[in-house]
Amino acid sequence: MKTLLYIGALALWLTSCGSKKSDALVIAEQGSFAVGGVVLTDSLGRKFHGDHAYVFYQKPVEARPLPIVMAHGVGQFSKTWETTPDGRDGFQNIFLRKGYSTYLVDQPRRGDAGRSTDTVTIAPTFDEEEWFNRFRLGVWPDYFEGVQFKQSSAALEQLFRQMTPNVGRKDLDVYAEAYAALFDSIGPAVFMTHSQGGAVGWQTLPKTDNIRAIVAIEPGGNVPFPVGQLPKEGRMETLTKSNTEGVEVQMDVFMKFTRIPIIIYYGDNLPTTDERPEQYEWTRRLHLMRKWAELVNYMGGDVTVVHLPEEGIYGNTHFIMSDLNNADIANHIAHWLHNKKLD
Amino acid sequence: MKTLLYIGALALWLTSCGSKKSDALVIAEQGSFAVGGVVLTDSLGRKFHGDHAYVFYQKPVEARPLPIVMAHGVGQFSKTWETTPDGRDGFQNIFLRKGYSTYLVDQPRRGDAGRSTDTVTIAPTFDEEEWFNRFRLGVWPDYFEGVQFKQSSAALEQLFRQMTPNVGRKDLDVYAEAYAALFDSIGPAVFMTHSQGGAVGWQTLPKTDNIRAIVAIEPGGNVPFPVGQLPKEGRMETLTKSNTEGVEVQMDVFMKFTRIPIIIYYGDNLPTTDERPEQYEWTRRLHLMRKWAELVNYMGGDVTVVHLPEEGIYGNTHFIMSDLNNADIANHIAHWLHNKKLD
Repeated sequence: MKTLLYIGALALWLTSCGSKKSDALVIAEQGSFAVGGVVLTDSLGRKFHGDHAYVFYQKPVEARPLPIVMAHGVGQFSKTWETTPDGRDGFQNIFLRKGYSTYLVDQPRRGDAGRSTDTVTIAPTFDEEEWFNRFRLGVWPDYFEGVQFKQSSAALEQLFRQMTPNVGRKDLDVYAEAYAALFDSIGPAVFMTHSQGGAVGWQTLPKTDNIRAIVAIEPGGNVPFPVGQLPKEGRMETLTKSNTEGVEVQMDVFMKFTRIPIIIYYGDNLPTTDERPEQYEWTRRLHLMRKWAELVNYMGGDVTVVHLPEEGIYGNTHFIMSDLNNADIANHIAHWLHNKKLD
Repeated sequence: MKTLLYIGALALWLTSCGSKKSDALVIAEQGSFAVGGVVLTDSLGRKFHGDHAYVFYQKPVEARPLPIVMAHGVGQFSKTWETTPDGRDGFQNIFLRKGYSTYLVDQPRRGDAGRSTDTVTIAPTFDEEEWFNRFRLGVWPDYFEGVQFKQSSAALEQLFRQMTPNVGRKDLDVYAEAYAALFDSIGPAVFMTHSQGGAVGWQTLPKTDNIRAIVAIEPGGNVPFPVGQLPKEGRMETLTKSNTEGVEVQMDVFMKFTRIPIIIYYGDNLPTTDERPEQYEWTRRLHLMRKWAELVNYMGGDVTVVHLPEEGIYGNTHFIMSDLNNADIANHIAHWLHNKKLD
């Protein structure tokens, strides 16, 4: 009788619990909040709260000690990390399954953090073909051969609809202030950034003590070099002319980048000529990040630059984290975190 | 030895699985997608995808058959249903724990669905004191006695920061089209609406066959009456002058509201005079919904209007789903869904 009970319990565990473990996400806690931001007061003393970030977080049971904060890029929001355009798990679910708590952010003046202290006029912009090229899916309307993006109109439509406009002028410092407030609030964490979010990441690090590592996916813009050491590529304006590729910082700020491990990824189809500036920009950025890594490492840092084709991984677009091989990329990142004792 | 193994397995089940069941959310599937919307083409043939809704969904293991789609109100986004301003579980987590799949939506031109086909200028609006009154927390700066809102500056700040502007003109039909596309895509579901989302709900029902019930929390605007039967309160403009409280529809459209169960909730502190129009508007709406319920029920429908103080539940604001007693309110709703055999 007793043995039967145990067998019953064991069976229950195997079917209703054990089987879930492999597929289901077991979330100890999830929720959302606004963080950072400022308060404006008008001449009548009335208030306006704005320029905060919006954060949705999930903590799996028995979570690893360091959560991952995920920062989207230009024209994007937290969707960058969620379901991929072709409907598979994005890095949100993949890293939750690996045991990491995730914090998905809409930066100030973007998406759900739309309450902006700035005034702006927003109109439809017919630029989807341009994004197709800049995101390196191909040269519109043709896909690159072997590109890691599902070549279906449904997937492409989801990609276009995951863009959302800036509510206010671009201001990396406003974004970085909100991210720093987030790190100050949640404690030590890994910062995973994408594209223009990479620039935000470089700008956030000096503002908080809680960034333990940076995983930068195809970062672009505002790479910090010591005063007087900005290379030629760093002095160039970005294509959008909203900032330069590099910035000069004081040596004590630069040295902060030598104190944490940093890994930087670039995908495939980086052109060798500037015939298509919107695609060559990424080639130039890879070169700049390599120069930066050399200098940071020379000063005692730990920066790794991964150009995926050199590791035999081909076809990746600018959206490496949602590409068809994103599970492999996530394993690559997890392996690095493990080697750096950050898991 | 064998018995020991079983005991070990049982202990494992009790500690690592059994204990999780009460606290942790066990999510079989979660993700996000854009749904609905239109495509504009400019004179050069270039495209712009806009006016879709953005949806984040979660399905608990062994989910109940009908998911709940949650529609926010004016100036809000999906945050309405997430963590409350004072940091407790909102209806997202509460109904997940009750076994319902949840679909949280940002309607077109709002929050993460900001890619709008309309052109708009957005500037900071110093109207937080006005929202404090309209949301019936009290009369600024004083809270109502016994109000179901945590009287702390931190909670109030989170409430203010969970507002986000319209990216484009208000257009209930644009919103309803996207919601209808969602119901067409996911199948039969319960529609839970808040405030102006209530008006969107009334407008969505005739566009899809998949709404099985409506739970409307303090709905306002565009209540459908048969042509010629719009009462005086229904012909009034809303305070924002953007629509009228009621609209006239053909009898075949009206009859659709008799075919599903509908429950409507209003909270406390509804003034009896129009001294404060921003608060009296809710009193007027309660009266209108009662007249509407009477007519729908007379025609064979099943509408319940709950004025919470009449059930001995006091202090609720306009945000009943995030008030301090939101767990009780959720139980009230779950009980109704059970009685209607919708669970």
